[in-house]
Amino acid sequence: MRTIIVGGVAGGMSAATRLRRLDESRDIVVFERGPYVSYANCGLPYYVGGVIRDRSALLLQTPQSLASRFRLDVRTGHEVIAVDAAQRTVTVLDLASGETATEGYDELVLAAGASAREAAGHPGIPTHTLRTVEDVDAIGALVDAAADHPSALVVGGGFIGLEAVENLVRRGIHVTLVQRGPHLLSPLDPEMVAPLEAQLRSHGVDVRTGVTIDTVEDGVVVLGDGSALRPDFIVDASGVVPSVDLARTAGLALGPTGGIAVDARNRTSDPHIYAVGDGVEKIDALSGDAALVTMAGLANRHGRSVADVIAGHDERNTPALGTAIVKVFDTVVAKVGWSERQLVSAGRDHRVIHTHPTSHATYYPGAQPMSMKLLVDPATDAILGAQLVGGEGVDKRVDVIAVAMAGGITASGLARLELAYAPQFGSAKDPVNQLGYVADNLRTGATRAIQWHELDAALAAGATLVDVRTAGEHAAGAIPGAVNIPVDDLRDRLAELPAGPVVVHCQVGQRGHTAARILTQHGFDVVNLDGGYRTWAAGAATREREGVAA
Amino acid sequence: MRTIIVGGVAGGMSAATRLRRLDESRDIVVFERGPYVSYANCGLPYYVGGVIRDRSALLLQTPQSLASRFRLDVRTGHEVIAVDAAQRTVTVLDLASGETATEGYDELVLAAGASAREAAGHPGIPTHTLRTVEDVDAIGALVDAAADHPSALVVGGGFIGLEAVENLVRRGIHVTLVQRGPHLLSPLDPEMVAPLEAQLRSHGVDVRTGVTIDTVEDGVVVLGDGSALRPDFIVDASGVVPSVDLARTAGLALGPTGGIAVDARNRTSDPHIYAVGDGVEKIDALSGDAALVTMAGLANRHGRSVADVIAGHDERNTPALGTAIVKVFDTVVAKVGWSERQLVSAGRDHRVIHTHPTSHATYYPGAQPMSMKLLVDPATDAILGAQLVGGEGVDKRVDVIAVAMAGGITASGLARLELAYAPQFGSAKDPVNQLGYVADNLRTGATRAIQWHELDAALAAGATLVDVRTAGEHAAGAIPGAVNIPVDDLRDRLAELPAGPVVVHCQVGQRGHTAARILTQHGFDVVNLDGGYRTWAAGAATREREGVAA
Repeated sequence: MRTIIVGGVAGGMSAATRLRRLDESRDIVVFERGPYVSYANCGLPYYVGGVIRDRSALLLQTPQSLASRFRLDVRTGHEVIAVDAAQRTVTVLDLASGETATEGYDELVLAAGASAREAAGHPGIPTHTLRTVEDVDAIGALVDAAADHPSALVVGGGFIGLEAVENLVRRGIHVTLVQRGPHLLSPLDPEMVAPLEAQLRSHGVDVRTGVTIDTVEDGVVVLGDGSALRPDFIVDASGVVPSVDLARTAGLALGPTGGIAVDARNRTSDPHIYAVGDGVEKIDALSGDAALVTMAGLANRHGRSVADVIAGHDERNTPALGTAIVKVFDTVVAKVGWSERQLVSAGRDHRVIHTHPTSHATYYPGAQPMSMKLLVDPATDAILGAQLVGGEGVDKRVDVIAVAMAGGITASGLARLELAYAPQFGSAKDPVNQLGYVADNLRTGATRAIQWHELDAALAAGATLVDVRTAGEHAAGAIPGAVNIPVDDLRDRLAELPAGPVVVHCQVGQRGHTAARILTQHGFDVVNLDGGYRTWAAGAATREREGVAA
Repeated sequence: MRTIIVGGVAGGMSAATRLRRLDESRDIVVFERGPYVSYANCGLPYYVGGVIRDRSALLLQTPQSLASRFRLDVRTGHEVIAVDAAQRTVTVLDLASGETATEGYDELVLAAGASAREAAGHPGIPTHTLRTVEDVDAIGALVDAAADHPSALVVGGGFIGLEAVENLVRRGIHVTLVQRGPHLLSPLDPEMVAPLEAQLRSHGVDVRTGVTIDTVEDGVVVLGDGSALRPDFIVDASGVVPSVDLARTAGLALGPTGGIAVDARNRTSDPHIYAVGDGVEKIDALSGDAALVTMAGLANRHGRSVADVIAGHDERNTPALGTAIVKVFDTVVAKVGWSERQLVSAGRDHRVIHTHPTSHATYYPGAQPMSMKLLVDPATDAILGAQLVGGEGVDKRVDVIAVAMAGGITASGLARLELAYAPQFGSAKDPVNQLGYVADNLRTGATRAIQWHELDAALAAGATLVDVRTAGEHAAGAIPGAVNIPVDDLRDRLAELPAGPVVVHCQVGQRGHTAARILTQHGFDVVNLDGGYRTWAAGAATREREGVAA
């Protein structure tokens, strides 16, 4: 039996090595267009920035090492340019010699990944994507050759774009970041990204959202807002599209998203052809619909599982949650599942919770602030998504929530998770437990909340806004129109409140909850401003910049 | 309605504040024997060590702050000395005045916690436990008053004992640590604790396991092994027992473990008396049996949930997994569920997996070594327990596994968890995913493994041990009797192997797995040494010291 694998990085190489462990006798050939296999894609930006200094650290395997350990026939510099599904052959172009050859297979695995969206030509300005070792070498050369006050334009404020920005700044480059959407990291909601944008600006990054490149002429970039830049070079991180040219030559079915359509066993529409990685559609865990989720973890996992399928085991993928994380300077941002924007677009009913805990017990030194957002199905109490921004401990909490989602634990059920507690690592009631408590209070009706973007409408409808923080906190920054009655004084000052609806708020939502409980029991019609002043301020800042109602 | 709560720290204060939020009109009285309420018990050792410098950071609330925010009637220095369940009254001793009073209740919540096991008198050597602010003040005074070369004896190598050791060392004290059991941290297995013991010794701690104090006379401590010490003082961290004296006066049922028996709603055998925290029994998640699990997280959570029950909500506790963590110098140790020893004692069938991953992608700077152990039910693939030792990222992985257990995710299912990946935080195949892959290979029979403590028997029965590491690794330290054939050479050197059973091993188990797959497919009867040389060496070191077969 002969298995041909197209693509020798994450998914392809996982498939090849696993298949060898399962089947010592099979003929396994891997064709990789580029000069390297099995390299650490996710480390590439950090090699640009000098965080990773040793180039060999990125190159995890070579064709030689894969031959000696796994008896793989790995051919770099070989591009598979066509598939004849009826004949079960591929046409391979040897990029060095320019010669083509035909190779037969019993099973074919397409793992060619995704490629950068076709960038418009940028006359006079060198432009590179950040997907391969060759890209990184080219960008490194541009950085080295840059002028006294070097500057770069990064197009795209997604995960890769942000990592590119950080690493260029590390190299002393002045960076302008242009993002088409209204805020960075479009898989998240605006108020959760605000701290990240602030962090970038504090490192001198010129963040421009809601704009695109209009024209590029003679080394001058003109943006949609009319401003002009003269970057030494451009890094195009504006996104990727699945590489499907080869799948088209084979006549394989593509899915609604444009990726290669596969079933849970990574089988394409041809019984002898499989596909894995960024080129294929995954199933979204929440909707059950096809989705493009271009994560290294899924590519590696599905590469391994397709080897099991080829070897005759009953191995199936589970739908994708899309867990993701990025660290930019000292700020860590993570998400899992759907955002509020996605839920709104899909018309899916949802409840929103914002909290602002600390990474570990405040009495132990070094606790860092964190903001969390949880999206909940009000009918079932199921967790629909989460977003986190902070520093230490963000990675842990997004994983805990992702596993809770995978295990079918409800939002209220987060309160009962037994998480490891010592003061260096968390709190007796961990931030994730606290999310569960808030979810439970909302579920049972013990408290009612409104969101930062609903406040204006509530006030316009005649509600009174009461700031239950201390006078000092109120003086340091308040929501326009708020009356200040500290929570500790509230019971004695009930007479100051009108009979109509009341919105209470504090700094993060917790004292507001206590205040809401007090007022509810005294007969008031009261809601708590979810996430308190801090969420409102983050949201208001975003909204102001966007110039639109959220 | 009047609710009396006995004990004003974790469980008691959670109950009081939650009850107020649920019921504005109730009369809530909290009696606390000590001078402080709502303090951070888990921070106490770090105040001794000067890590927490600000005393006020530990004292989270005062009777005054609780009165103004929550209208609680908190009386410190008041010890409840008897309960008359029939009359629904308690007798309260005012420790300052010596006067007693009788107070009536509608509901009583016992949250008096646990107390240190009765320590033998230690003539001539000041001895303190480490449970309260007063304990810490006393120990602090002893440290301040200590001689030029101060020394201390810590009795008990559990979580609190280890934190005491670390913090005394920080203060320049020479510490001898005496542990009754054969290794530190008895909830874990010996090979997982070996790195911790090495870490303590590298900080100059004299670790003595398998011994107890024999006699103490004239300031000299004689241990069971005949050695003598002259410590300036002793910290007794030899364990706690539930405080049940008050429950006895009320005639409440105690459970088989000696703790107060409660149901899932924290109701005792008296319909008007509830109990929470370290004084009550929990239900073990794996056995369904009563168990003492003295964790701050559970105390806080059950304190909150008992308030819901009293307020008329249907709130029930879930069984306890016993997730725990401790950091000692740079070493972090964590566990969840049962240990191998517990499973063996209970006669419960189990499968064991050891891995040695790194905390994050090795190509990114700062990755730290980690050792993981997973215990699996071979019949159901359920996770029975896990143990971890390392540095960065141990807290995250134990939480991920704890949540997987809570969500009913199987051991093999760990492979499919979608954990957030960027190179600072993990690997495309996270260490937890890797555990799942190993579990799946064992489940499907793709690989067979033996444990470090089974190797001698296998060799005695005639198996050949093959070290598949490189010649250099073999030369640097090998298992006696092993033949060295590097995995990359194995296919070419099959003729060197005997026909009989073969045990292969590498450094951590991964190349051993590849070697086992190669040999299996060439017809050999082969098993892989689980966890490789590293687990074997850790186990062997322990066994040597203990002088017994594990």
